Amino acid sequence: MDRPSFESDYNNGAHPDVLRRLVETNGETSQSYGYDTWSESARRKIREATGCPQADIYFLVGGTQANATVTDALLRPYGAVIAVETAHINVHESGAVEASGHKVITLPSHEGRMSPDDLEAYLRRFFADPTWEHMAVPGMVYVTIPTELGTIYPKADLERICDICREHDLRLFVDGARLGYGLAAEGCDFDLPWLARHCDAFYIGGTKVGALCGEAVVFPQGAPKGFFTHVKAHGALLAKSRLAGVQFDALFTDGLYLRIARHAIDMAMQLRDIFVEAGLEIKDSPTNQQFVVLENSRMKALMEKVLFETWEPVDDRNTLCRFVTSWATTAAELQVLREALRG
Amino acid sequence: MDRPSFESDYNNGAHPDVLRRLVETNGETSQSYGYDTWSESARRKIREATGCPQADIYFLVGGTQANATVTDALLRPYGAVIAVETAHINVHESGAVEASGHKVITLPSHEGRMSPDDLEAYLRRFFADPTWEHMAVPGMVYVTIPTELGTIYPKADLERICDICREHDLRLFVDGARLGYGLAAEGCDFDLPWLARHCDAFYIGGTKVGALCGEAVVFPQGAPKGFFTHVKAHGALLAKSRLAGVQFDALFTDGLYLRIARHAIDMAMQLRDIFVEAGLEIKDSPTNQQFVVLENSRMKALMEKVLFETWEPVDDRNTLCRFVTSWATTAAELQVLREALRG
Amino acid sequence: MDRPSFESDYNNGAHPDVLRRLVETNGETSQSYGYDTWSESARRKIREATGCPQADIYFLVGGTQANATVTDALLRPYGAVIAVETAHINVHESGAVEASGHKVITLPSHEGRMSPDDLEAYLRRFFADPTWEHMAVPGMVYVTIPTELGTIYPKADLERICDICREHDLRLFVDGARLGYGLAAEGCDFDLPWLARHCDAFYIGGTKVGALCGEAVVFPQGAPKGFFTHVKAHGALLAKSRLAGVQFDALFTDGLYLRIARHAIDMAMQLRDIFVEAGLEIKDSPTNQQFVVLENSRMKALMEKVLFETWEPVDDRNTLCRFVTSWATTAAELQVLREALRG
Amino acid sequence: MDRPSFESDYNNGAHPDVLRRLVETNGETSQSYGYDTWSESARRKIREATGCPQADIYFLVGGTQANATVTDALLRPYGAVIAVETAHINVHESGAVEASGHKVITLPSHEGRMSPDDLEAYLRRFFADPTWEHMAVPGMVYVTIPTELGTIYPKADLERICDICREHDLRLFVDGARLGYGLAAEGCDFDLPWLARHCDAFYIGGTKVGALCGEAVVFPQGAPKGFFTHVKAHGALLAKSRLAGVQFDALFTDGLYLRIARHAIDMAMQLRDIFVEAGLEIKDSPTNQQFVVLENSRMKALMEKVLFETWEPVDDRNTLCRFVTSWATTAAELQVLREALRG
Repeated sequence: MDRPSFESDYNNGAHPDVLRRLVETNGETSQSYGYDTWSESARRKIREATGCPQADIYFLVGGTQANATVTDALLRPYGAVIAVETAHINVHESGAVEASGHKVITLPSHEGRMSPDDLEAYLRRFFADPTWEHMAVPGMVYVTIPTELGTIYPKADLERICDICREHDLRLFVDGARLGYGLAAEGCDFDLPWLARHCDAFYIGGTKVGALCGEAVVFPQGAPKGFFTHVKAHGALLAKSRLAGVQFDALFTDGLYLRIARHAIDMAMQLRDIFVEAGLEIKDSPTNQQFVVLENSRMKALMEKVLFETWEPVDDRNTLCRFVTSWATTAAELQVLREALRG
Repeated sequence: MDRPSFESDYNNGAHPDVLRRLVETNGETSQSYGYDTWSESARRKIREATGCPQADIYFLVGGTQANATVTDALLRPYGAVIAVETAHINVHESGAVEASGHKVITLPSHEGRMSPDDLEAYLRRFFADPTWEHMAVPGMVYVTIPTELGTIYPKADLERICDICREHDLRLFVDGARLGYGLAAEGCDFDLPWLARHCDAFYIGGTKVGALCGEAVVFPQGAPKGFFTHVKAHGALLAKSRLAGVQFDALFTDGLYLRIARHAIDMAMQLRDIFVEAGLEIKDSPTNQQFVVLENSRMKALMEKVLFETWEPVDDRNTLCRFVTSWATTAAELQVLREALRG
Repeated sequence: MDRPSFESDYNNGAHPDVLRRLVETNGETSQSYGYDTWSESARRKIREATGCPQADIYFLVGGTQANATVTDALLRPYGAVIAVETAHINVHESGAVEASGHKVITLPSHEGRMSPDDLEAYLRRFFADPTWEHMAVPGMVYVTIPTELGTIYPKADLERICDICREHDLRLFVDGARLGYGLAAEGCDFDLPWLARHCDAFYIGGTKVGALCGEAVVFPQGAPKGFFTHVKAHGALLAKSRLAGVQFDALFTDGLYLRIARHAIDMAMQLRDIFVEAGLEIKDSPTNQQFVVLENSRMKALMEKVLFETWEPVDDRNTLCRFVTSWATTAAELQVLREALRG
Repeated sequence: MDRPSFESDYNNGAHPDVLRRLVETNGETSQSYGYDTWSESARRKIREATGCPQADIYFLVGGTQANATVTDALLRPYGAVIAVETAHINVHESGAVEASGHKVITLPSHEGRMSPDDLEAYLRRFFADPTWEHMAVPGMVYVTIPTELGTIYPKADLERICDICREHDLRLFVDGARLGYGLAAEGCDFDLPWLARHCDAFYIGGTKVGALCGEAVVFPQGAPKGFFTHVKAHGALLAKSRLAGVQFDALFTDGLYLRIARHAIDMAMQLRDIFVEAGLEIKDSPTNQQFVVLENSRMKALMEKVLFETWEPVDDRNTLCRFVTSWATTAAELQVLREALRG
């Protein structure tokens, strides 16, 4: 066995059931640009899973693309999106939202989460400012479920964020690049239909949850006018849309999407137990990303047995490290880690 | 057998050899964002096939995305790109080039091709105009090989276009969404290394030549500074880059890319013969897109036997129709067409 | 006397009455960013002159700025604007509309005018095209009154263009950089209130009609939401808005705007008579731009006596030349020209 | 006398010497778009005043426009600009920089200033981050002289910022909307030629220093290629460029620009003395913006005698208020304030 890799949830191929469907359907001809039968079928299944019979659903290729395309569609040209400082759109998307012309306004991150209080205070202050018309006007709130730090939102917080958005006429957009891991996490007190009722747009991430690529962008109350053309203008329209359609059709057949997520969560909880057993300090995360503090020389020794990412230095002697699980993580891999930590 | 489909070269799955490699490599973990070993390997093979050891190569997902991303990287903010009226970027990309801020300046189409004379005359007139600084300044020429109408450029024309670009300090960019079919066409008097020496950027289309998705963007003399970040800012960076890497590695192993193209060309030439035999008027095309004039009632009858696209009305009674071949086109399918036309 | 200049209507200072008001008000303090009392007063007067009590009016600095800012506000991100080939936005604005992300779709120019038939045919064809969702979708029509070639639209044509726009849910925008000269032209069969009832936005050009700078953008039925912020995001908000406000207040006091235009038209008609007298071939233009064909050696000789612009070569021996009048054109200047042509 | 206004330095007209030149030159015809003789003359004088014989100089209309246009010209498409949180481009420009596609990266404000230490630390951390290619890449530093809070930079700090920029291949851009007030401030230990040698671009603000409008953008080592066209594409090119040219020619004749600034500074220092005399708490500012803490009821009473702006609440009972001087501020106005505070 090669060194087990806990580096990310996009360092492996597709879940075997997804791949099998790609192989099975490869010989069939189909329409393209989203009009193929698998995309149609996938949309039907997602409408059912989200409890939104009238939802518009588009399959985009990746997360940054989905974020920039949706943001640009929901905002007026001078509109800004509010996100926490650690948000993916603010840090790790090369300024894609700004490249489409929109400012990202940041609020403090609370373990990756936005605080409804911060949001409300910001908006009250903003619209009370006599110079507000000279500023980029917030038109949308962006939250991530689960967050970049692996945390999830309590339903009550999302509900308040949703209410605040409606009060101030802002759209609410949920980046769900890892949505499955949030929904499957212990302590998550909402489900997909509830989420769909509380936001204007969200996406169900495929790339990080068992697919080779693909994010299903869902507009529960319908997409903005002309969104198909908008997607193409953003260079985000797949010609062979079967690639996304077949995969999402498989992911939403027999609950595969959530089964993949639950497996990864199960592995992640065992990972956490291994760290706790080993007496290590961990960050609280109920999802498939686990953060642990490793003393630097121990970290280097461990790296020769298993692969993982360093996140950020804690101090001169210790580093916060990230371990990620996925559909591909196995009990045998965890055992290698357990033994490596014991060694 | 379902009705054979000649609708497009992106209505089928991947070439079996490409698909097999996706299946074989699925279980391996890898780096992402273009740093996976398959992408590295594919780049090496493409550098060899293009005779450009120093080329920078990036794998993007689709054609519109590649066109807009490269154009925006090669132009200054006020720069414009020159293309023929029928060019894909001018007609069928939802204004993606303009969405990145750049004007498309059009010249007449000569069966899909740009005339070097037209280009030279335009540029001379442009820079002689005392008001030229008030206009969008051409900084790039965009040509398609083969063109949207299935035609190819004689080498001499490309050479002149290249020279004109160098004289006026314009970049030359080749949209190669169907590049293989151009290179494999009878009468094509240049090859990949020659092309690479005569342009600043081009891409080798995968989507339409046997892959599920993917275009290999090649900068023979090196990419513009920061192109990786630029790609991500355009939402065009694949997380699981293995998806593109594995496919292009397969396409550039044992000459598969050109073999796929040659098969499609072979089928297309038989298609042409079938039309000629049937006494139909055809457009001259040496590539995998064949255009034929069908009387409207005959067209409708034919559609019940085989699938194809109408292109544009010729007059009240006749329609120009497009038939496209690909790796998946079979002799049996051609036979269905032959018989349907005889019927 | 220096050589009289007929080069343009922006080569002189402000009309004396406009300048005097700038001097008279210079010592007063005021609000800024459009909230000064002169801007408020100017808006009231323009609402009255256009018969639009509910109009929103913004004072921008120049024409290109006004065109790009309004276009970007009225279109969705993927939206395109339809204009004739000779339109200022298509030729002489350095791609400013595209720089804001929007394609300019061109129709043939009929002496600078758009033909309602062309427009209707284009839109019918566009929306009948099964691939229209893959194209930049027209969302606005741009016409210029008077056109770049000095011509004006018959009311009946504008009415049809307006109807076509409403039928296809397009906005109608009128570039009025020289609007006064159109309204004051002999044969113009509509007035400002009629125009205001037939378009979604237009501007009343100040720069070319007696001001130092400034264009009054009028939205007869109200501006798009957040237009103030949008203007600032386009870098188009004047801090010392008094500069525009005072000038437009003067221009719309006691009918100055139309008096300036009528004077220039009167001078232009005399100019035309001088050319006719001299047996020269002229283009038909009822406005302040007159186009005349001059034999090249005669043209050069004339240039030593009066200043004017060459427009375009007619053939090897003759050139089309442009002569423009303004508030500053005098009978004495015309006399110089008359004598120069006789000489 | 109306209530004296200390609300801003753009609430009055032009300095009388500037206005007089506009009147004197009004009757002359001229070239346009920056080619008029006054613009040429103004450029010569500014080249001399900045000690940059090879400088390229463009006259734009306003500050937001200048900031967005220059930023977009100096950055690559994915490039970001670093500024302090309180920077005008980050707060009060409606997202104009982002509307041109660029992210604003913020560092803490130290009384409006950027700390060289913060900048250096940020850049070291940025380029050490293994994921930096996934982020908007800083390509420019933006500083304001004087800052939004009226403070100025010690020469040593600017020198270090300049060195850090050169080390990391970043451009340095100085927003000089109020530049004169910085140069004329007590304690400013550099002059215009020194500044010009230490940055890649800066502008000399006219709007807030005695003109009706206009900012002189200076590129000491030459402008980016095609900047004229770039300016027009941003909607920032004045047709009647005489308006800017005449004003800057006047401002740079006989040292008027600095004389205006010195008068305002003199008035501001007297303003400060008045506050100190009255026992009020003030912010330290050597420039024409003075910030003072007023108890709320006293603030309201004072507002009935003089006009000024509230800046931000200090606590429930006190407010920070801003008083601004300009060429138009008189000793008599100060006397009204002095008496009002005594009353």
